[in-house]
Amino acid sequence: MAKHEHPVAAFGWAARDSSGHLSPFNFSRRATGENDVTFKVLYCGICHSDLHNIRNEWGGSTYPMVPGYVNFELNFYNCIAALTNSNALFNVWPPNILRHEVVGVVTEVGSKVTKFKVGDKSCANDLENYCPDMIVTYNSKYNDGTTTHGGYSNIMVADEHFVVAIPDSLPLDGAAPLLCAGITVYSPLRYYGLDKPGLHVGVVGLGGLGHMAVKFAKAMGLKVTVISTSPSKKQEAIERLGADSFLDSRDQEDMQSANGTMDGIIDTVSAIHPLQPLLGLLKSNGKLVMVGAPSKPLQLPAFSLLIGRKAVGGSIIGGLKETQEMINFASEHGIVSDIEVIPMDYVNKAMERLERADVRYRFVIDIENSLKIAA
Amino acid sequence: MAKHEHPVAAFGWAARDSSGHLSPFNFSRRATGENDVTFKVLYCGICHSDLHNIRNEWGGSTYPMVPGYVNFELNFYNCIAALTNSNALFNVWPPNILRHEVVGVVTEVGSKVTKFKVGDKSCANDLENYCPDMIVTYNSKYNDGTTTHGGYSNIMVADEHFVVAIPDSLPLDGAAPLLCAGITVYSPLRYYGLDKPGLHVGVVGLGGLGHMAVKFAKAMGLKVTVISTSPSKKQEAIERLGADSFLDSRDQEDMQSANGTMDGIIDTVSAIHPLQPLLGLLKSNGKLVMVGAPSKPLQLPAFSLLIGRKAVGGSIIGGLKETQEMINFASEHGIVSDIEVIPMDYVNKAMERLERADVRYRFVIDIENSLKIAA
Repeated sequence: MAKHEHPVAAFGWAARDSSGHLSPFNFSRRATGENDVTFKVLYCGICHSDLHNIRNEWGGSTYPMVPGYVNFELNFYNCIAALTNSNALFNVWPPNILRHEVVGVVTEVGSKVTKFKVGDKSCANDLENYCPDMIVTYNSKYNDGTTTHGGYSNIMVADEHFVVAIPDSLPLDGAAPLLCAGITVYSPLRYYGLDKPGLHVGVVGLGGLGHMAVKFAKAMGLKVTVISTSPSKKQEAIERLGADSFLDSRDQEDMQSANGTMDGIIDTVSAIHPLQPLLGLLKSNGKLVMVGAPSKPLQLPAFSLLIGRKAVGGSIIGGLKETQEMINFASEHGIVSDIEVIPMDYVNKAMERLERADVRYRFVIDIENSLKIAA
Repeated sequence: MAKHEHPVAAFGWAARDSSGHLSPFNFSRRATGENDVTFKVLYCGICHSDLHNIRNEWGGSTYPMVPGYVNFELNFYNCIAALTNSNALFNVWPPNILRHEVVGVVTEVGSKVTKFKVGDKSCANDLENYCPDMIVTYNSKYNDGTTTHGGYSNIMVADEHFVVAIPDSLPLDGAAPLLCAGITVYSPLRYYGLDKPGLHVGVVGLGGLGHMAVKFAKAMGLKVTVISTSPSKKQEAIERLGADSFLDSRDQEDMQSANGTMDGIIDTVSAIHPLQPLLGLLKSNGKLVMVGAPSKPLQLPAFSLLIGRKAVGGSIIGGLKETQEMINFASEHGIVSDIEVIPMDYVNKAMERLERADVRYRFVIDIENSLKIAA
């Protein structure tokens, strides 16, 4: 037990320093608690956040770090809730515990908490993702001081509240990124009222998030325009993903022609970029929603918001209730992510390719089959 | 008629160049059209926009210019709609035409227009203030090429659609700024859902707009915190205007103590200022609404929007329907602006004082009584 902080042996791949290089790593998981389920991990998607974190690009990284962004863990008062999976898919035992309707202790506590402590409200509102007390799945600490580790590993353990049921109709590999990229774009389409058939939305950036935004928006009956700096993606956006039109954001004439035509925009770009041309695309009351997280502040021209009563909003993943709704919606509409399945030992190469956006559109690690070998 | 572009002689005070100095000026108004009413102006508030415009600080000023910000004039197809009063109050003949329910031609056209031309939708939605075809009350051109002139003048003419009825219970001098400062803060409280009793809103800046925001927000049953760089305003904010609390925005401890406590913020500041501390004051789903218009872009930290699903929105005055609602609400709750009534020939001095924010909280020109002398 000297090496293992918890009683259950686990293994995965971890970064040891800010080079971000990943290699096999033995660690431990907590025992299955009263409200927990323990999972055998099957697939884990690679999120761009993983790349930022293993290289300490956002600061605050601690090593060794097993990435695999699975949302977070909450601690409400004396109730240790547990971690949400966002990118990893699990083989669950017992299987019948995979009902999201099981709300359990966290929500009961949450509903009382609202009367006393404002910051805790998010949980009672099914907004666990905006909870100020959340514990992130990896690169974070449990309340007992031990380190959280993510989904690039063989087993995980979670409170049932944070488990999402995947319908049989969805292939597990293509569904893995739904729990991160999918919910990240689905949630703002719903919350910002951009889900009414006939509305026109723009999707800025055609990567892991953007391609999911096109699929969900089309399934909601929207008119979708992809806005990208890469005109080479036009054909793919329209023919493969079903977008209605395409704007080259570096072509001023192209952009000008679409001014004042959009009800909303989902902006997935993490690089610094100008907001003014995007605000120009919006109709009055239009909403520009940022789901990418540029590391430096963007320039916000206030006049562009006043004239037309426009708004710039943010959104980050989604709560558990909405995540289950998204999964069910994806199942009904046959939506999965376009993925490239890779073995565990390809992960460092995959990170390099991810850095230059050389993937259409998400890497998914075949944990079950390839981690066996590494172990 | 060489000097007068229109048949009706009018006079007022005009700026002749970007010094902004105002002096008596003879000009003309159009004859009363089929849907017009002609007004004798009684009071006209001084808006900070007037100061910017007479000095050409926003660019595009043409001279001579009779200021007096009264919203705008619309041109829809063949229908010449007319100007909205926002800051001037009128003695109207015939008085029974002062019914806002008279919607008239513009709305009829608007309701058809929505099917064919997206940009025109705002009118059909009672959002004349976001109409891309609007003609501003002064420093603008009518469709016949003649110049629009504002409310620092003896008479005005307007289509009945753009006339707002002032209930007898409201004093006309104190009510004048309601039509500009009042609607500017009332409209976003409604539109952004910040009008539910018990919600907590912050009001940034305690000037013409800010003091109206406190009054309306309190009348709506909100908890109101004034956020200001001038701690000297604390007593006034709380004792005179009825705010619940006060934050010195330069006192980090003060600001920190209120982090995550507000549902929304009405930001009335026109100077460049940091948004991050204000975003920090918001709860999840909180909204920061800008009604001031800083001339340069502000720094927008995207992370601050993502974490907590916050939004920064804009808003500018209000549509005619909502302006009438605001006036009725003000009448019911006895809300008027705190004003200093001045004669016409004090206007240049008033502009100097306005520049250094030396007014509590709005100058209103007694047009009827003092313009007589000037003429």
